[in-house]
Amino acid sequence: MKAEIISVGTELLLGEITDTNANFLASQLPPLGIDLYWISQVGDNQARLVEVLRRAWQRSDLILTTGGLGPTGDDLTREAIAEMLSEKLEVEPSLADKLRQLFARRNVEMPTSNLKQAAVIPSATPLYNSQGTAPGWWVERDGHLLIAMPGPPGEMQKMWNDDILPQLRLKCSGEVIFSKILKTLGLGEARVGELVSPLLSSANPTLGVYAKADGIHLRLTAKAQSQQQAEKMIAQSEAELRSILGEHVWGADDDRLEVLVGNLLAGKALSLATMESCTGGLLASTVTDVSGSSAYFKVGLVAYSNESKIAYGVAPEIIADYGTVSREVAQAMATAARLRFEADIGISTTGVAGPDEIEGKPVGTVYIGIDWAESQKVIASNYPGNRIWVKHRVTSAALFELRKMLVALD
Amino acid sequence: MKAEIISVGTELLLGEITDTNANFLASQLPPLGIDLYWISQVGDNQARLVEVLRRAWQRSDLILTTGGLGPTGDDLTREAIAEMLSEKLEVEPSLADKLRQLFARRNVEMPTSNLKQAAVIPSATPLYNSQGTAPGWWVERDGHLLIAMPGPPGEMQKMWNDDILPQLRLKCSGEVIFSKILKTLGLGEARVGELVSPLLSSANPTLGVYAKADGIHLRLTAKAQSQQQAEKMIAQSEAELRSILGEHVWGADDDRLEVLVGNLLAGKALSLATMESCTGGLLASTVTDVSGSSAYFKVGLVAYSNESKIAYGVAPEIIADYGTVSREVAQAMATAARLRFEADIGISTTGVAGPDEIEGKPVGTVYIGIDWAESQKVIASNYPGNRIWVKHRVTSAALFELRKMLVALD
Repeated sequence: MKAEIISVGTELLLGEITDTNANFLASQLPPLGIDLYWISQVGDNQARLVEVLRRAWQRSDLILTTGGLGPTGDDLTREAIAEMLSEKLEVEPSLADKLRQLFARRNVEMPTSNLKQAAVIPSATPLYNSQGTAPGWWVERDGHLLIAMPGPPGEMQKMWNDDILPQLRLKCSGEVIFSKILKTLGLGEARVGELVSPLLSSANPTLGVYAKADGIHLRLTAKAQSQQQAEKMIAQSEAELRSILGEHVWGADDDRLEVLVGNLLAGKALSLATMESCTGGLLASTVTDVSGSSAYFKVGLVAYSNESKIAYGVAPEIIADYGTVSREVAQAMATAARLRFEADIGISTTGVAGPDEIEGKPVGTVYIGIDWAESQKVIASNYPGNRIWVKHRVTSAALFELRKMLVALD
Repeated sequence: MKAEIISVGTELLLGEITDTNANFLASQLPPLGIDLYWISQVGDNQARLVEVLRRAWQRSDLILTTGGLGPTGDDLTREAIAEMLSEKLEVEPSLADKLRQLFARRNVEMPTSNLKQAAVIPSATPLYNSQGTAPGWWVERDGHLLIAMPGPPGEMQKMWNDDILPQLRLKCSGEVIFSKILKTLGLGEARVGELVSPLLSSANPTLGVYAKADGIHLRLTAKAQSQQQAEKMIAQSEAELRSILGEHVWGADDDRLEVLVGNLLAGKALSLATMESCTGGLLASTVTDVSGSSAYFKVGLVAYSNESKIAYGVAPEIIADYGTVSREVAQAMATAARLRFEADIGISTTGVAGPDEIEGKPVGTVYIGIDWAESQKVIASNYPGNRIWVKHRVTSAALFELRKMLVALD
């Protein structure tokens, strides 16, 4: 099945918003075995919208549109579809009733302009919108399927998940495309590429390598006659990748480091305290992004200056002897965090976030300290990039190292 | 001038990445008075790429492409342009030399595949890429202009800003479109909409209202015969908006609250300390996102638990009497931060980040405390949304209130 996505809205052409709807829908099609050949964005202009729809109707089996279903004069998707198919728009009384009830529940009288949202053409079946006033359309004719959805991402995704996806699955009983993402940290993109090069040339499953803020992601995508077969192919390649990349693989798909670390800490009833210099609070903030983190997160200190490091337990002579950005200070900060804040594990960061050098050390030089009564560890690294990027990379690396230590406990 | 954007890359059609390049370029065209009518995304397939290019060449004066200029076999933008214009690709020796020098500086021999990046057609002038190996193309023929840029956003934007934008400005001497964004905080989107409704119906300049993490943004856009005239129109509407919205307006265009606050603190030689509960370190992290923040940021403490609040200076009876999430605890935390960390100003957050209620207070209940030797202030608010969204909203609100106090000092 050849598919095409059309996003409608002048705000897309003015650069005011990014078209995340097309991206969401594009990511939904491979698991259905649907090939997407075209995406386009068009403004709220009926002539141009009809032109784009007409071409799509000629060359594609499935057309997905988003936007242009609102109640105002510049919402023209319904009108354009009707013109393209030479069908007549008429208000469907039951839809109009539903709309009126919606407004009544809000104690508001329905503006007359909303009535156009209850209009349909003979080939269109309305799709219920639980999040707003704009119903979607499911249009089938002459072997083509056109699905019109509202533009607000929340409304569109809910309609897609609840109503459209199940119906579409029934229509697609052909090939299945299944993907899995493996997430790694500690190796550069080029190095990962070299290591996995035997798999990069495979045609099925395919392998893609992507650099992200939380490390290098590997995406395996398999095409097969069934979901089961596709999953089996992915499992084989995944096992190969895991054996090549070893402990650099920290998660898969939607995994987040702070959630994995949180689960490990909660499961082992261990508590955590942080003392941050170069990450400036981002490490504590990321740990506390997880609900339930108050159970294991004791205290976080942002100790930017030498005086504050000393006030909270770093011996001044260590700073004098080795410099603020040093293996020794990272170690002392982690130990101080553990002892001072009465936690089981202390973790620290010190480094040069930029834009200027510190103590002759270049931007991106970073030490991460972990202290755990029985064992201490300092990880030295260098991260290229700007200040905010460095903060994120160091935060990910700190959580990655902590996760490794927690996993090794088992 | 009618423009069209074409983004090339199969990863866009697989939903693996969002097309931010089209959004960036779309936002660049209004100030040049260029009307953008079409955006499309197409995969790495020469036939489909030629089809899209051919249609664009017919209907648009200016075509901007990104992507497909890499060295590998699936990078086909050069080939497709050559086919569309029936021109022959030939390696340009001086370009090939430059590429070889680039590799030599990295102490790497140039792979033969990179040579295709030095190929041009007679109508194309190469554009220098300071960030990578792929030169862009500036193609002028028969009254049409096609500009091909590399896909990585960093390379594309640098080439656009340094090389393409100045040349394009010379070509566009017609109508100018000029925009200005005003940033507000402390009023909801609907309330802002009501207050500014007289300006919302204006056709020129137009006014748009958008909800963002750092408050409600208002975008004024004027069309005029000259930049000067457009700026004058904007200035008049801006003055009206500022008189309507008063101290809720905190900045414009690229302003960031943490930068404004940082400049005020640095300018007045005042220091800041934080004690955070519900924001979990995000406030300190945001303050330290600004380079030079070590000059005014003393210490940040993330005191999630009651014990840690007490250990750092909050009287236990205040927590017992009023609860952790209370006006009184926010005040005590701010004072403790100021005194304990020897700063001029202490700022605190306590609230219910979710997903569960605390002390019978609903998710989103938040108190922000500011303590400054002579004056104290507590701001009570309620923020809907999930945990991470609440953290960002509270962080913005805390910086907004701090900015107001600092500005009032003058």
